[in-house]
Amino acid sequence: MEYVMRPIGVIHSPFTDKKQTPIQPTRSQAVGQVVVYPEFAEGLQDIEGFSHIILLYAFHQSEGYSLRVKPFLDDQLRGLFATRHPCRPNPIGISIVRLLARRGHVLEVEGVDMLDGTPLLDIKPYVPDFDVKQDTRVGWYETRSKE
Amino acid sequence: MEYVMRPIGVIHSPFTDKKQTPIQPTRSQAVGQVVVYPEFAEGLQDIEGFSHIILLYAFHQSEGYSLRVKPFLDDQLRGLFATRHPCRPNPIGISIVRLLARRGHVLEVEGVDMLDGTPLLDIKPYVPDFDVKQDTRVGWYETRSKE
Repeated sequence: MEYVMRPIGVIHSPFTDKKQTPIQPTRSQAVGQVVVYPEFAEGLQDIEGFSHIILLYAFHQSEGYSLRVKPFLDDQLRGLFATRHPCRPNPIGISIVRLLARRGHVLEVEGVDMLDGTPLLDIKPYVPDFDVKQDTRVGWYETRSKE
Repeated sequence: MEYVMRPIGVIHSPFTDKKQTPIQPTRSQAVGQVVVYPEFAEGLQDIEGFSHIILLYAFHQSEGYSLRVKPFLDDQLRGLFATRHPCRPNPIGISIVRLLARRGHVLEVEGVDMLDGTPLLDIKPYVPDFDVKQDTRVGWYETRSKE
């Protein structure tokens, strides 16, 4: 079984080099533009009501993957699915960004951490009722989160 | 440009009928099993350290989409990208679930809200540093969240 995904837009960011790109949006206040292709613009109605949105996109510069990787924040090999590494069997990235403004089919967002030109696959509203969990443990990341 | 996604496993849940399926994991304490195909099992190393994981999956029962939809929680048409409706141009679902246990390549999880047999595309660790945002507004959902 295969699922064919086609971009619904493109994400512009200040990052043109993988090495300069921040690790996650929490560590970025960079502003970017999410350009939704005009044929999908109608689907953006009501989005201004949400302070944050979830961007799903293709890690288009990632090639291949290993099942054990050294995360950017760590110096030991970890299981790929215990990391947010961009090289994955299905190279889908997710980032939660702040929605600053909408101008027609263009969204201005804060906290981008993806490369300029990243293909957009989906946008979902960020809803704390669904997306925030309590009593969390974060495994290997625990000791790294303060760095 | 197209991106071809192939399942890395399958999610088992108590829900075999779309109409019975809970709207989001917050509203579900249902237990399910994430069966990762053995060839990807090595990528699960270290995942036990995380209390919650993000499941990305295909909305495999969804056919087509409309850019304006009536959300399950609302009685007005809303822009598709301001909803979590399963019928989307790229039918990718995300749910954050609690990881109860791992037995080899099978993860027992709590809070499933997807149909039994849902194709798994990716697993990411849930990291509040990346995934929790403050000062949120939730638009049309605001008045619905108490229901």
